[in-house]
Amino acid sequence: MCGSEKKIYIVGMGPGREDMMTGQALAVLDRADLIVGYTAYIRLLGDRFAGKETFSTPMRQEQDRCRYCFAQAREGRRVALICSGDAGVYGLASLMLEIGEDYPDVELEIVPGITAAVSGAALLGAPINHDFCVISLSDQLTDAAVIERRLRAAAEGDFVIVLYNPQSRTRRGYLKKACQIIEQTAGPDRACGWTRCIGREGTQTGTCTLRELQDVPADMFTTVFIGNASTFIAGGRLVTRRGYHV
Amino acid sequence: MCGSEKKIYIVGMGPGREDMMTGQALAVLDRADLIVGYTAYIRLLGDRFAGKETFSTPMRQEQDRCRYCFAQAREGRRVALICSGDAGVYGLASLMLEIGEDYPDVELEIVPGITAAVSGAALLGAPINHDFCVISLSDQLTDAAVIERRLRAAAEGDFVIVLYNPQSRTRRGYLKKACQIIEQTAGPDRACGWTRCIGREGTQTGTCTLRELQDVPADMFTTVFIGNASTFIAGGRLVTRRGYHV
Repeated sequence: MCGSEKKIYIVGMGPGREDMMTGQALAVLDRADLIVGYTAYIRLLGDRFAGKETFSTPMRQEQDRCRYCFAQAREGRRVALICSGDAGVYGLASLMLEIGEDYPDVELEIVPGITAAVSGAALLGAPINHDFCVISLSDQLTDAAVIERRLRAAAEGDFVIVLYNPQSRTRRGYLKKACQIIEQTAGPDRACGWTRCIGREGTQTGTCTLRELQDVPADMFTTVFIGNASTFIAGGRLVTRRGYHV
Repeated sequence: MCGSEKKIYIVGMGPGREDMMTGQALAVLDRADLIVGYTAYIRLLGDRFAGKETFSTPMRQEQDRCRYCFAQAREGRRVALICSGDAGVYGLASLMLEIGEDYPDVELEIVPGITAAVSGAALLGAPINHDFCVISLSDQLTDAAVIERRLRAAAEGDFVIVLYNPQSRTRRGYLKKACQIIEQTAGPDRACGWTRCIGREGTQTGTCTLRELQDVPADMFTTVFIGNASTFIAGGRLVTRRGYHV
């Protein structure tokens, strides 16, 4: 980053532990004048960025946060916008690229990070070791009918299904409803698992059947895994066979 | 890793550039006595691991490679098995867990890495910024009929679709056939993109329509992205809207 170029780095910080970030992401944050993103995320990284100037906005003010990045970059500041997991998986990368059309003088670089489908899978075993779908159950930006259609299609295609944002305090019963839709195709005994607070204090994981998954107390920090017909649970781990004859 | 425990680390090395690995993955490889995996991958990382003992087997001898890891771990060696991208996404994590049932005294830990869906997306823009599917077109371990069924389901669900292993020297015409299946639902003008040799020398990217994608000269180093109905190309970048009203 030299002084004359106007550039924003959009950085995936992974689950929140410094050693689960890439060297590239750490180097960008080390060099940044300003880190934009939830202060809770920066706090997760501990002392390394404790002295950095940060800026945040409340939830649902994502567009303000993005435009602030562009305004600061135009003033010559080295800006890094951070997202948990990967910025291009339900993060702010696409919104930044959309808004960026108003700021053609500002370059955007996306620095990938470990998304919860991958970090959660590693904790559980190997549930996404074959074709898989990632679906968010949040209907804040997506019609509920679209989500339902995708759940049905994913089950019909015998995909492993990873659910992000399964439910929240204001969205109760969403996971149960999703499970019931998938159960129509997959049956009640399908092997499933879930992870909570990956890479953070109080990490939890569990395996269960699809029927049992309905009643797991999931929240916005939970990532849910629903196996395909070749997924099994062994020794507390959730594993999807790739097709080798062992 | 202390001397008495028997443990194998199954490590995702990301696309192949050292600064795209996590600190956790680098630390595991630094401490390993033996790195098992294609020597080409280790070579990609340059001098850092140049002095390490390595072991590999030819393609299609994955089970031998896995059992070698267990045998070495039983002899008290610190073993790291590396896979490109993430070990749990079309990598050896699930096979290791399956074979591991024969070696209950050996612990397995999976260290996540950046998979091509995520690293390729970052290069292209933000194509997987909403619900997406990952499908491998390789029919070496999967029936062609299963792959076809998944392609149809993914298109019917209006998922963004990421294709791994689109074709190889021995599997020609696979990408064209997949595009034709998806086109029945998505139409010929759907926004698409592809990346080749992510994070390595000679990285290439491109955007195109679904009809044009049929004739992209894809190989095993290519990752293909097929947009959903909300995906667009702007300024050479492939972006899937998340639903904000910009």
